[in-house]
Amino acid sequence: MVDQRSRVCDVAVVGAGFAGLAAARALTAHGHATTVIEARDRVGGRVHNEHLPCGTALEVGGQWLGPTQDAVLELLGELGLATYDTYDEGVKLFEFHGQIHRYRGTIPRLNPLTLADIAQTQLRLDRMARRIPLDAPWNAPRAHRWDSETFASWIRRNVRTAGGRAYFTLICEAVWAVAPSDLSLLHLLFYIHSGGGIDRLISTSDGAQRWRVTGGTQRIAERMAAELGDAVELGRPVRRIAQHHNGVTVDADGLQVQANRVIVAVPPALSVRIAYDPPLPGYRDQLCQRYAQGSVIKCMAVYPEPFWRDDGLAGQITSDNGPVKVGFDNSPPDGKPGVLLGFLEGNQARELARLDTAMRRTIVLDCFSRFFGPRASNPEHYVERSWADEEWSRGCYGGFLPPGGWTAHGPALREPAGRIHWAGTETATRWNGYMEGAVRSGYRAASEAAAARSGIQHPGR
Amino acid sequence: MVDQRSRVCDVAVVGAGFAGLAAARALTAHGHATTVIEARDRVGGRVHNEHLPCGTALEVGGQWLGPTQDAVLELLGELGLATYDTYDEGVKLFEFHGQIHRYRGTIPRLNPLTLADIAQTQLRLDRMARRIPLDAPWNAPRAHRWDSETFASWIRRNVRTAGGRAYFTLICEAVWAVAPSDLSLLHLLFYIHSGGGIDRLISTSDGAQRWRVTGGTQRIAERMAAELGDAVELGRPVRRIAQHHNGVTVDADGLQVQANRVIVAVPPALSVRIAYDPPLPGYRDQLCQRYAQGSVIKCMAVYPEPFWRDDGLAGQITSDNGPVKVGFDNSPPDGKPGVLLGFLEGNQARELARLDTAMRRTIVLDCFSRFFGPRASNPEHYVERSWADEEWSRGCYGGFLPPGGWTAHGPALREPAGRIHWAGTETATRWNGYMEGAVRSGYRAASEAAAARSGIQHPGR
Repeated sequence: MVDQRSRVCDVAVVGAGFAGLAAARALTAHGHATTVIEARDRVGGRVHNEHLPCGTALEVGGQWLGPTQDAVLELLGELGLATYDTYDEGVKLFEFHGQIHRYRGTIPRLNPLTLADIAQTQLRLDRMARRIPLDAPWNAPRAHRWDSETFASWIRRNVRTAGGRAYFTLICEAVWAVAPSDLSLLHLLFYIHSGGGIDRLISTSDGAQRWRVTGGTQRIAERMAAELGDAVELGRPVRRIAQHHNGVTVDADGLQVQANRVIVAVPPALSVRIAYDPPLPGYRDQLCQRYAQGSVIKCMAVYPEPFWRDDGLAGQITSDNGPVKVGFDNSPPDGKPGVLLGFLEGNQARELARLDTAMRRTIVLDCFSRFFGPRASNPEHYVERSWADEEWSRGCYGGFLPPGGWTAHGPALREPAGRIHWAGTETATRWNGYMEGAVRSGYRAASEAAAARSGIQHPGR
Repeated sequence: MVDQRSRVCDVAVVGAGFAGLAAARALTAHGHATTVIEARDRVGGRVHNEHLPCGTALEVGGQWLGPTQDAVLELLGELGLATYDTYDEGVKLFEFHGQIHRYRGTIPRLNPLTLADIAQTQLRLDRMARRIPLDAPWNAPRAHRWDSETFASWIRRNVRTAGGRAYFTLICEAVWAVAPSDLSLLHLLFYIHSGGGIDRLISTSDGAQRWRVTGGTQRIAERMAAELGDAVELGRPVRRIAQHHNGVTVDADGLQVQANRVIVAVPPALSVRIAYDPPLPGYRDQLCQRYAQGSVIKCMAVYPEPFWRDDGLAGQITSDNGPVKVGFDNSPPDGKPGVLLGFLEGNQARELARLDTAMRRTIVLDCFSRFFGPRASNPEHYVERSWADEEWSRGCYGGFLPPGGWTAHGPALREPAGRIHWAGTETATRWNGYMEGAVRSGYRAASEAAAARSGIQHPGR
């Protein structure tokens, strides 16, 4: 092409999400020249701030951090960013079988049989999950059995109460943004173990929803990118990666990068939309054919203030009915403005994505009004993001494997293809699917590339 | 690019497999100018002849036709091609629990309990399958239930004998080239109905393996392409499809085609590797993220003559052990040379694809020798094709949906995206996954494009 520019570096990185930026930063710190090539005109990947006219940042993508997410918490410190607690005071609302119940603490008051069923099931799933080797789920003692059924068929046979079944369906939607039918039981167990147990995944006060980042999580990506300076190339979708005897050539729109190695830090589903020369092995390609992205539309309604707090409400909702099945008070720390957050997840996201925004807005606000009264139906702003429709993400929160995927193709997940290394939260062993997993995967891929390049075993972590 | 050529036509067709060529032929017959843009330097897609030094064609891709495959049989007549019967005489061999059994007819002699179990299960699956609306599997009465489990978990709960379970596992591998864990029960049932029942799918003498095409099935594609003449552009991978207010622009390597409409006739998994402007709706994209291709390596050993016939053997094998679980006498009609065909399917294909050819050759020939004696271990030629490794197919025989796919995303399968129409055997309602389905899908997409273009409702069939 006429306007094609050329760059030369040690390690090229495809994708300026958390994984790619963390990899590039680690490599740079150890003296390896990198170029980060990003399709979008922004960094952050599945993490994005939108700004209201008043300047307030709304996080339309990933937003929470929690305990044991040590890599990203350490990174936060290095980048000079602060956290604050997710709003978690007051009465929470829980809709079940058409009735809205009020509760405090972590678990709604349900009948004792249902509570016992939930507790027993959770104990059992956590125990099974701990048996999954995080770096090789296909080697779990019962891997083939657990990978041969869906979470839905497991729930049907193992959870005895209607309330228990609704509860675990809700958890599946909230954590994976898919329906229980979509998920391999083995993948579910791997992921539970990867995050440190079900409580860690679902809890606000002591889990993955505990902290928020002042100014919004995208700042993490922006500050990493700022350090990398003009090593980050925006608006350059990568189309082709060619390997030759002494390096790789990465062709993006308007840019060609020559490097010794390349780290591809995009979800598996998107990694195969790049053309490879030589073509990837079928074993790897078919893993990616099956590693789909979850389905979520993140919806926020903005009000002059968080009026529900006056009624003693936490702004947190769960519902077996939906379409918003999980919601939060997502106001900034000073409570100005007030922000209600609702997730459309799994099949709700898929169905409602086919409506126009105005219709979806009405449906979401009707849902908020059911919980918070008529004031909820007239926000100052309504902001949403359908991640499946984003060309360079094609789904959130993360990828998931259906039955058969791990046991048939698992070993291909992180196995380099010649000079190509794979990063992205879908390749993480700890906190797979989270920003934490993305950062860790970036460090791991950086290690691999650096070791292959120079014999350095570990560039940093 | 410097060497970019331009073409203008009414309907552009992406992919010169059976679907694309059939679509282009139907459109041409009704006066619509078409250009077929093919990535490979040959036509036929998943159908390919390789030629031995002696000139004999070996079909390394799709090869069989059967009763009720009327579209492709009619096409065969129009193209002046003939069929012959699959070799189906003599004693067949069946390996079960380490013992090789001999039998004649369709079903091996197993113990009566196993036979009753198999018959009852087949009856039941056929009956369930008939309840699936072929144009809308998600509307089946029990669609959500059947789409929430794998064929593996269904087998485990519903098939009582070890022999029965081995039998249906074998059928799953032989028909879909996947493991029972991989497949949604709903997809299995849809596909059984689509092909007209389990017997139709698995039978040689009265089913989908009944006839072969003189000179090899690729001739069908070659003759269609010959009729289309220089409307077929080979060696042009399509990279981008842009829609604008009065047409589409299709960019391939070295070629740009302007057309009113475009038919994309590649598997769903590959259709999303093209860049679209505007991007496809997430609902469609996520369907394609989940519609993976099966895994098969087709292996043939060539001998001076079909020596097994002298021993009264049909050359047909089935095995619960494998790795070749299904095999045929694949000699040309005159029996010169003798050809043994063995399929590595599902997990066997995935695992063995990671070995080198020499190792795989040894394993396959060892397997043949177990059935046909030491002569089988010294063929004149060994020919194989691993379809997952083919950049422009990425798996065979066809695509399959895991649990959740049909009910979550099914309506996107054939729904045009503006001026883009979808073809390919994965979009077929009848004989989905077969050459017949491909041809029918081509006609259907041609109808759609022609109707949209000119008000003509049906260009041919």
